[in-house]
Amino acid sequence: MLELRLVQGSLLKKVMEAIKDLVVDANFDCSASGFSLQAMDSSHVALVALLLRSEGFEHYRCDRNISIGMNLGNMSKMLKCAGNDDIITIKADDGSDTVTFMFESPTQDKISDFEMKLMDIDSEHLGIPEAEYHAIVRMPAAEFARICKDLSSIGDTVVISVTKEGVKFSTRGDIGTANIVLRQNTSVDKPEEATIIEMNEPVSLTFALRYMNSFTKATPLSNTVTISLSSELPVVVEYKIAEMGYIRFYLAPKIEEDEDEAIPQA
Amino acid sequence: MLELRLVQGSLLKKVMEAIKDLVVDANFDCSASGFSLQAMDSSHVALVALLLRSEGFEHYRCDRNISIGMNLGNMSKMLKCAGNDDIITIKADDGSDTVTFMFESPTQDKISDFEMKLMDIDSEHLGIPEAEYHAIVRMPAAEFARICKDLSSIGDTVVISVTKEGVKFSTRGDIGTANIVLRQNTSVDKPEEATIIEMNEPVSLTFALRYMNSFTKATPLSNTVTISLSSELPVVVEYKIAEMGYIRFYLAPKIEEDEDEAIPQA
Amino acid sequence: MLELRLVQGSLLKKVMEAIKDLVVDANFDCSASGFSLQAMDSSHVALVALLLRSEGFEHYRCDRNISIGMNLGNMSKMLKCAGNDDIITIKADDGSDTVTFMFESPTQDKISDFEMKLMDIDSEHLGIPEAEYHAIVRMPAAEFARICKDLSSIGDTVVISVTKEGVKFSTRGDIGTANIVLRQNTSVDKPEEATIIEMNEPVSLTFALRYMNSFTKATPLSNTVTISLSSELPVVVEYKIAEMGYIRFYLAPKIEEDEDEAIPQA
Repeated sequence: MLELRLVQGSLLKKVMEAIKDLVVDANFDCSASGFSLQAMDSSHVALVALLLRSEGFEHYRCDRNISIGMNLGNMSKMLKCAGNDDIITIKADDGSDTVTFMFESPTQDKISDFEMKLMDIDSEHLGIPEAEYHAIVRMPAAEFARICKDLSSIGDTVVISVTKEGVKFSTRGDIGTANIVLRQNTSVDKPEEATIIEMNEPVSLTFALRYMNSFTKATPLSNTVTISLSSELPVVVEYKIAEMGYIRFYLAPKIEEDEDEAIPQA
Repeated sequence: MLELRLVQGSLLKKVMEAIKDLVVDANFDCSASGFSLQAMDSSHVALVALLLRSEGFEHYRCDRNISIGMNLGNMSKMLKCAGNDDIITIKADDGSDTVTFMFESPTQDKISDFEMKLMDIDSEHLGIPEAEYHAIVRMPAAEFARICKDLSSIGDTVVISVTKEGVKFSTRGDIGTANIVLRQNTSVDKPEEATIIEMNEPVSLTFALRYMNSFTKATPLSNTVTISLSSELPVVVEYKIAEMGYIRFYLAPKIEEDEDEAIPQA
Repeated sequence: MLELRLVQGSLLKKVMEAIKDLVVDANFDCSASGFSLQAMDSSHVALVALLLRSEGFEHYRCDRNISIGMNLGNMSKMLKCAGNDDIITIKADDGSDTVTFMFESPTQDKISDFEMKLMDIDSEHLGIPEAEYHAIVRMPAAEFARICKDLSSIGDTVVISVTKEGVKFSTRGDIGTANIVLRQNTSVDKPEEATIIEMNEPVSLTFALRYMNSFTKATPLSNTVTISLSSELPVVVEYKIAEMGYIRFYLAPKIEEDEDEAIPQA
């Protein structure tokens, strides 16, 4: 038996909006420690990892580890029917082939039950080792989203280059070139407006903007985004989810002179 | 000669938005008592009845009963050209084949005259008898619109079930099922947020969501909607129009096990 | 060497939005006096003239007269990447085949360089003589835009008629006719809300609404628009740009009984 009650139900709505265009079907893994998901995007280029820790739920009951397969488009359709202030409860009985989403309005005058069929999904869980990164950039999530969107109007790929002074985002297309430089900036009024660079060595890597733009759909979840770069590893684009956990997106860099998309090395 | 002057012209704009997608051409009936319309939708499934009482107009002159046939799409195009604060006057001379809409800005610095050709439309006026209903639900109009929209993402029909405790809206589709329950709730800060149930006997009826969603285009006209249900009658979905009158939509319930749409029994 | 620094960069963004749909490619002319453009629309019916005087720039360096050919769609794509509060600098080296747009955020923490390829464009510069007009109407720009949009839902052309009392905009279409009259009105609280008519003799001219609607894309640049009418000249629709200059659109009247579009007589 599974019963997870999340007072801030809008978080779950935002999580679905963040990943539903990238991943079609996926297994959600429930254990005593939390509600998580790991899935490749449909073209097997990017990887999404989601964690919502059990402590973040008002009520969290998960009698045994269970994996529930859901179509994310359908799950999103149902969660869109929850009000932004609703409490959302996810329920599944042992052995049942359905999951129930219950939405309670703040006044308790409106109670909705949405029951969705589960799916059998083959998935292999990739171990993602802790790694050292050459550079880690923390910056306002909205600024990162704006940069990825702006560069997409010029080119298809972005080169992200980190030095001690700042981080540069570059692209090149038929109509010209674009370079956007953000300076390290820690002395801001609001901590979430800071751009903070931790760098062990300079790094310059190329990524498909299409995926970067897709990752930025998680922007409503967090004021800041953390981008971890290493020349030997996929980039990690992480959005923290309040006190509960995170969404992390992994994407392998493109090899220069090679227009094909590389397979992530996660 | 007909001359109807409506200070709150935005009401007429909202009325057109509420019915123009449901009804293509219709006769507006003008008499000493008011400006009214009764029309079937183009697929002859739903019925719309509109009444704007003469007392609601600042000036109301209607020398003799007259029926003016208009294309609602064209009428809507013209009324969209009125500002939201404009005074609207509807004018028609006896025997004329045109109607004039005059829009006056609040400062009187902008005066618009739109003249539209009238149409000859065959229509029979259905007598709608006063009836007893098994249950009458009054609820916030925006909540009803939200529920119809949400259920449409899951299924094609809605079952509306009323008991003393509350009203339940249910649907079923390929991806699962949905039940939304509103509790009777009369102790709210604002009267328009109440959900009030008058019930003689429990009732459970099925309707096409497509029509219900169409009816909810009248939501901007009123804070509340009243749904009158009886197993032997079409449902009535009524939006009151300020102090002036109402829009009522009639729709026959679907017979269970029967996927075809029934003809209203109005 | 050309280097033009504009603190209120959003002006340049608005200028591009105003003309990019009308003109595909155009030469911008830079001289000591300012940055200007004169171009026919792609169907050679309307003429656009833009002037940004050198005094309006924070820094203006233009060593010699130079004409730089740009695709306005591409230029607009790049300028859209500037923030609304950004300072924009336009730079071009002598003999270079590119132009650079630099965007600086107000905090100087984000610096963007967009480099665009220049084009060779044949253009002839038309002399536009100073002229006497029969009537000049100054009115709120948003009101003019609203009127052109509203009339477009009824007909294809607008007749603009000016008398001492006011200005009338009329159209006619399949569904009927429309007349919108604005009274001269100088006693308003805010000067930009005035409708002011200077008239030497009454005038009534017909124009294609398609072009008028296109001109109103300049509305965000100015609170007021000035319409100069003469039966022997193209109409001039002028939007002043703050303290810097203007955008002027020229369009020849349509000859009555003649459905073809006339060639401007500029």
